[in-house]
Amino acid sequence: MGATRPGIAIGELAAQFGCELIGDPDARVGHVATLANAGPGTLAFLANPKYRPKLAQCAASAVVLSAEDAAGCATNALITDDPYVTYARIATVLHPSTGHAPGIHAAASCDPTAEIHPTAHVAPGAVIEAGAEVCEGAFIGPQCVVGRHARVGPHSVLTANVTVAHHCEIGARVTLHPASVIGSDGFGYARAAEGWLKVPQVGRVVLGDDVDVGAGTTIDRGAVEDTVIGHGVKLDNQIQIGHNVRIGDHTIVAACSGVSGSTVIGKRCLVAGAVGFVGHLNICDDVTVTGQTMVNRSIDKPGVYSSALPMDEAARWRRNSARFRRLDDLARTVKRLEKAVASIGESAATTPDREGDD
Amino acid sequence: MGATRPGIAIGELAAQFGCELIGDPDARVGHVATLANAGPGTLAFLANPKYRPKLAQCAASAVVLSAEDAAGCATNALITDDPYVTYARIATVLHPSTGHAPGIHAAASCDPTAEIHPTAHVAPGAVIEAGAEVCEGAFIGPQCVVGRHARVGPHSVLTANVTVAHHCEIGARVTLHPASVIGSDGFGYARAAEGWLKVPQVGRVVLGDDVDVGAGTTIDRGAVEDTVIGHGVKLDNQIQIGHNVRIGDHTIVAACSGVSGSTVIGKRCLVAGAVGFVGHLNICDDVTVTGQTMVNRSIDKPGVYSSALPMDEAARWRRNSARFRRLDDLARTVKRLEKAVASIGESAATTPDREGDD
Amino acid sequence: MGATRPGIAIGELAAQFGCELIGDPDARVGHVATLANAGPGTLAFLANPKYRPKLAQCAASAVVLSAEDAAGCATNALITDDPYVTYARIATVLHPSTGHAPGIHAAASCDPTAEIHPTAHVAPGAVIEAGAEVCEGAFIGPQCVVGRHARVGPHSVLTANVTVAHHCEIGARVTLHPASVIGSDGFGYARAAEGWLKVPQVGRVVLGDDVDVGAGTTIDRGAVEDTVIGHGVKLDNQIQIGHNVRIGDHTIVAACSGVSGSTVIGKRCLVAGAVGFVGHLNICDDVTVTGQTMVNRSIDKPGVYSSALPMDEAARWRRNSARFRRLDDLARTVKRLEKAVASIGESAATTPDREGDD
Repeated sequence: MGATRPGIAIGELAAQFGCELIGDPDARVGHVATLANAGPGTLAFLANPKYRPKLAQCAASAVVLSAEDAAGCATNALITDDPYVTYARIATVLHPSTGHAPGIHAAASCDPTAEIHPTAHVAPGAVIEAGAEVCEGAFIGPQCVVGRHARVGPHSVLTANVTVAHHCEIGARVTLHPASVIGSDGFGYARAAEGWLKVPQVGRVVLGDDVDVGAGTTIDRGAVEDTVIGHGVKLDNQIQIGHNVRIGDHTIVAACSGVSGSTVIGKRCLVAGAVGFVGHLNICDDVTVTGQTMVNRSIDKPGVYSSALPMDEAARWRRNSARFRRLDDLARTVKRLEKAVASIGESAATTPDREGDD
Repeated sequence: MGATRPGIAIGELAAQFGCELIGDPDARVGHVATLANAGPGTLAFLANPKYRPKLAQCAASAVVLSAEDAAGCATNALITDDPYVTYARIATVLHPSTGHAPGIHAAASCDPTAEIHPTAHVAPGAVIEAGAEVCEGAFIGPQCVVGRHARVGPHSVLTANVTVAHHCEIGARVTLHPASVIGSDGFGYARAAEGWLKVPQVGRVVLGDDVDVGAGTTIDRGAVEDTVIGHGVKLDNQIQIGHNVRIGDHTIVAACSGVSGSTVIGKRCLVAGAVGFVGHLNICDDVTVTGQTMVNRSIDKPGVYSSALPMDEAARWRRNSARFRRLDDLARTVKRLEKAVASIGESAATTPDREGDD
Repeated sequence: MGATRPGIAIGELAAQFGCELIGDPDARVGHVATLANAGPGTLAFLANPKYRPKLAQCAASAVVLSAEDAAGCATNALITDDPYVTYARIATVLHPSTGHAPGIHAAASCDPTAEIHPTAHVAPGAVIEAGAEVCEGAFIGPQCVVGRHARVGPHSVLTANVTVAHHCEIGARVTLHPASVIGSDGFGYARAAEGWLKVPQVGRVVLGDDVDVGAGTTIDRGAVEDTVIGHGVKLDNQIQIGHNVRIGDHTIVAACSGVSGSTVIGKRCLVAGAVGFVGHLNICDDVTVTGQTMVNRSIDKPGVYSSALPMDEAARWRRNSARFRRLDDLARTVKRLEKAVASIGESAATTPDREGDD
């Protein structure tokens, strides 16, 4: 952000990432930009056709795009089959993660029985409790808590204000964004005469490798066995994962969704924002759920599933939703009309016209 | 979690918890397990009939179940009227809360005017502000903040990264899970010519005894008077409680629900996940609300209330939701048809068939 | 909260805030109260007509109200055109924000390269990272993190457990409530053969002046350019703002709403609770969205928009929602019936009655 870099020759990038280059291989790019606001020294990309019109005036030093868009490009082009993937790879080279110095800051608080690898970094204000393990290259940010006997895998990052509760296991190369919580107690209560009785939650949370957990996302520990998040799963902000849930590898979930207890979600699913899963369901692999859907039954067939109504102007919406409250009556009326019309038709020796449905 | 315990004889458990025992009273159990994965030395339970088929092969040393299921049990049985409640009680004996050493950690920061009971524990990184009170046996976990003049009642637990704002009152035996916030300012603004004018929020939050507040849950302080959460109320993760809300004793609310300002909810209500209450409502005792419902009016009759549509395949859902946008038109068409049919019927001296509704 | 104040003469308040006073100008008020529970020495207000009946018995020393309500007031009246705005101004005088002593607490941790104004306050447990700037009169509460090169503007308040990530910019007089997160990485992944590839998020979050951010609210940094929140924007608790979002000045958003990436919202919009915006939309100025709406398309006309169904008793709701699953079939049946009736009508030389729609 702001630091001027000498940049990398786009000829080198083309070679490294297998792109066809049209233009000057010695042009250099130092940071990324949008097509609309790019200037000299920047790299832009085109993946969404909606932005194609910006290509003709783009002032970037190079644009990553597909072959079909190359003709319209006003500047140097890096041609690739999947521009967004290639852009992600090049952007990671241009904007590498900030490294961190190994060692424990004097203002961190680490229990003497915790094992902290000498290459790990523990920031001021972090707390590492008894018996916890922090592996090589891990980063424990300010105000983070690693609970008793929890384990943070190699090169994982706890950004800031993160809580990892006791005994939980975090895989390798995991990122936990601010205010996320791993291993809070599951919501288990038995209804006794005197009120709600807490059921001990003795399972853990186990996160696989390469998992990302968004800001404010909470994942409850299992009631008896573990809550398990597979490898490569990406969870956006403010997601709630209930106890005993299992999520398969490479599933991705957008913000504000919630998964109730004991539901199992397959691999490579795509879950949009604000989706709610009720408990004890089985969702197979490769399911897509659109935004604000209530998933209230198991799914055993890959496909796309929905339940949210689209927005309307309030006046029309009110009329329609008032009708919804009497939809069952309406359907019964239609049934009656069908019979009446059929009976009239028969008495007139004619049949209702069943053709021409729109 | 790994620690091997000698276990407790199930004859003792039967006596202590009033169960009928079928089997060997000297069998010992040390920890809990699921019916499916139980082994020797474990205790399982059967409360949900769905899991009954697991009973025949269960390898637990004992299963808590009801009389009607006892015949199918392959191992020692602890028979009780309410297996889930009895399981909860026994599990609490097998898995007691981890105790804590009394005292203030050197890396905590306590204002000299705060009153902290000598039996309370204050963890590293915790901050106790001026005039706050922490009662006997309370636990203030790492990175927790107890604001000015706030009070944490006896044996209450602030797990980690919890904020209790100034002047709030936390009852006895309360648990506040990580990243929960008690006493943030209510959302009160008056629209002035120059923009939104903040209305001071001078009330408090008062939590009764035996309240649990989930991870990431936020409870706003009252605008003038207090926001009040009754005894034994259980709030799951990521719930939002607006200012001036009152929730009656023993009501339970599942994750991701929100209650807008000044709404009053009765006792013993069951609120499912992702439910939204608009403001200034009155909800009577013993109401159940199903998941994702928008509670947009007061409720004065106990019962079950809903408003979320169930999931469907996206293609069919799109067809139906497009029709919804013209539902009012459809209803008008049906009305017209009814009249037309009646008029035809009359002119034919016949009446439409009104019998045989499905 | 208990502290007895000598109070202010209401004659002074009337003069200062341009109210007409009916009653005793020497009556004094020290704190605010509700109409229902007010006593001597308190100031109440009437803005919602629902509470008008409380006026006759109100025991406050003064009530702020409009001219039309003055006749019914049992006590001294401060008459004004907009009682809620005037109440907000007076309440702010009666309940001023608690000041803070300038200086850095010994238990805070500030990088030596951070610039902290001598009038700012840094609380115990706060962490200020390298190159960060904290301006005059700012308050950095306990457990807050101000990341590398972030800037907190004059007189802004980070209450407690707040995270401001690296390079983000916070304007003047901003309040960040507990557990809020500014500048978490946006949710950007490219689908590669080996799994989801993280796209670096190199933009910032820029908050204007006089912005309030609620407890647990998260605002993601931009992917390439910045996420921008305009002046005077008020965000309630547990709101999620995706990367690249822009929100216009003086827009207000209620709790639990979410805005997906790259959506642009205009000025002075009113967004109710639990609303979800899909990504890449443009919402014009002065739009109102009602609770739980899914905003799934751009809006170019000011007005009120909705999509949530109102609550019903569960039994009736189940019947109606079952019918919804076949709504398209129902509409086709009605279409068929229309044709059949028209054809019968024609053959009888009569036309269906199209008058008298309700």
